[in-house]
Amino acid sequence: MVTRTKPVSALVLLAAVAFAPVPAARAANDPLPSWNDTAPKQEIVAFIARVTKEGSAGFVPLLERIAVFDNDGTLWAEQPLYFQALFVFDRIKVLAPQHPEWKEQEPFASVLKGDVKSALAGGEHALMEMVMATHAGMTTVEFEKIVSDWIVTAKHPKTGKPFTKMVYQPMLELLAYLRANGFKTFIVSGGGIEFMRPWTERVYGIPPEQVVGSSVKVKFEMRDGKPVLVRQPELNFFDDKEGKPVGIQTHIGRRPIAAFGNSDGDLQMLQWTTAGEGARFALLVHHTDAEREWAYDRESHVGKLDKALDEGNTRGWTVVDMKNDWKIVFPE
Amino acid sequence: MVTRTKPVSALVLLAAVAFAPVPAARAANDPLPSWNDTAPKQEIVAFIARVTKEGSAGFVPLLERIAVFDNDGTLWAEQPLYFQALFVFDRIKVLAPQHPEWKEQEPFASVLKGDVKSALAGGEHALMEMVMATHAGMTTVEFEKIVSDWIVTAKHPKTGKPFTKMVYQPMLELLAYLRANGFKTFIVSGGGIEFMRPWTERVYGIPPEQVVGSSVKVKFEMRDGKPVLVRQPELNFFDDKEGKPVGIQTHIGRRPIAAFGNSDGDLQMLQWTTAGEGARFALLVHHTDAEREWAYDRESHVGKLDKALDEGNTRGWTVVDMKNDWKIVFPE
Repeated sequence: MVTRTKPVSALVLLAAVAFAPVPAARAANDPLPSWNDTAPKQEIVAFIARVTKEGSAGFVPLLERIAVFDNDGTLWAEQPLYFQALFVFDRIKVLAPQHPEWKEQEPFASVLKGDVKSALAGGEHALMEMVMATHAGMTTVEFEKIVSDWIVTAKHPKTGKPFTKMVYQPMLELLAYLRANGFKTFIVSGGGIEFMRPWTERVYGIPPEQVVGSSVKVKFEMRDGKPVLVRQPELNFFDDKEGKPVGIQTHIGRRPIAAFGNSDGDLQMLQWTTAGEGARFALLVHHTDAEREWAYDRESHVGKLDKALDEGNTRGWTVVDMKNDWKIVFPE
Repeated sequence: MVTRTKPVSALVLLAAVAFAPVPAARAANDPLPSWNDTAPKQEIVAFIARVTKEGSAGFVPLLERIAVFDNDGTLWAEQPLYFQALFVFDRIKVLAPQHPEWKEQEPFASVLKGDVKSALAGGEHALMEMVMATHAGMTTVEFEKIVSDWIVTAKHPKTGKPFTKMVYQPMLELLAYLRANGFKTFIVSGGGIEFMRPWTERVYGIPPEQVVGSSVKVKFEMRDGKPVLVRQPELNFFDDKEGKPVGIQTHIGRRPIAAFGNSDGDLQMLQWTTAGEGARFALLVHHTDAEREWAYDRESHVGKLDKALDEGNTRGWTVVDMKNDWKIVFPE
């Protein structure tokens, strides 16, 4: 029973290494051309060499090469607000005609006036209310279409670029480099799982089944003899902080050997990953580049990086200084 | 961004087809040697031919070739009781010294007396009580070890075989055949997700991240400076009936094109799978072989097959008559 299937998996992954097409950018045999030759790049390359060298003490079998990535602030930008919050505001504007009561009702009234600050004054409770009003009540198929349509048309308020162009080129290279070395790459994000799935395969090469995120409850129903899944206005799972290792266990069922994040929301994921035996890798993206991107950490209302930075420094995790370690930030 | 990663996935899967080693049993180019040349085999082969032929109307791109399998009664046997229930009884016996009160307390007292019928007289409530008493309170790492130890030592009460030898040889061939044609194979079972994960890769070639099942809640904690995930005595998700399409959406995030089951618990999964556009395949294993396995359907207390059989007949789903369609049932 064993021998029938195992060799296929191994060969598949070996084939990936052998046949991975070489993009123009790494023609010079550099898998990470957008990274300066500073400590983070050297540490990544050394880790990959260590876990892929058969017979070495750090060798990790192909099937156990699991890498997890936070999304907001790690794979794409998250300023001035999580992009999903901007999606929520856009949806409130689209849905407003069906909700005349929103004109008088906070936090919706502030969103409709374009007053983001007041809209968010109600904190997590207000945000959750807006998420439920915009992310539930439709089928999963309908929601997927809403997200798919939004992601190709919406523009970032500061740069005017589509959000999928505000992904980090060095991280795209890192994803490809890991996969070329037999890693299975997963997203583990506080963001909505169904907000990411419609585009992560196209943008990151990460298929829907390798996306872990927050979710609302979903209910199976028959409508006119056809089965549908209806999104309910009730939180199912919050994939942040202590939730991230739980999300990893639920979806992946084994401990990753490498984890990539940028905020205190990723701390427990990095703790969980590095607490396993054998070779382990943890990396934090530190946003230090106010010119090419944004500079923020301990005091930020979005992507706060405080405790995780201290722990990263203490425990020798790799910390990317965006300004000094990345040649370019966004693609092109 | 797209071009960097997509070709790798495609090549990986193509390579799997090209390089999949040919087991001795299918030397004669028959991928399903344990299947008689009756309708089910012909329908499977025709479906695979249809979805893999580029340019044909039924062609399905590699990344969308998702197949889902129920476990109990579909991949391995489930009589006289779900094997996980036998695991529960064994755990109760092991844990009894730490629970002197169980001697007087139902349903535990009956289990300890070996009276399974009385133990199960309390129905779902009693079963859930026993599951929580035996599946919670320990860390995920500890539970994995408990299952791993049990699965290699426990024996089936009737056949005396290890449970992992009571898997269906024709279904093992089917799993391998699908994978050789670029399918990603998932388990979607009412059984416990962490009861299956420790052995599904070895037995079925299905890695932990492709196993969907029922679960208890899990909590992240730091113990002596080390992170652990502690299993809580509270149901998190019940992956049966209406739950199966929900589990599929949560874990896979796209609709399968092929689904395999054997009971009314699989009905909604087959409905959900076949309601998608394009080529679809649904199969029910009908247990008709009292001699080599068991014969049961509409009246069975385990794996009841009633509504799903009617709907399968009406809608033209493939129904395997185990006695007539399978040359052998178990391996060897």
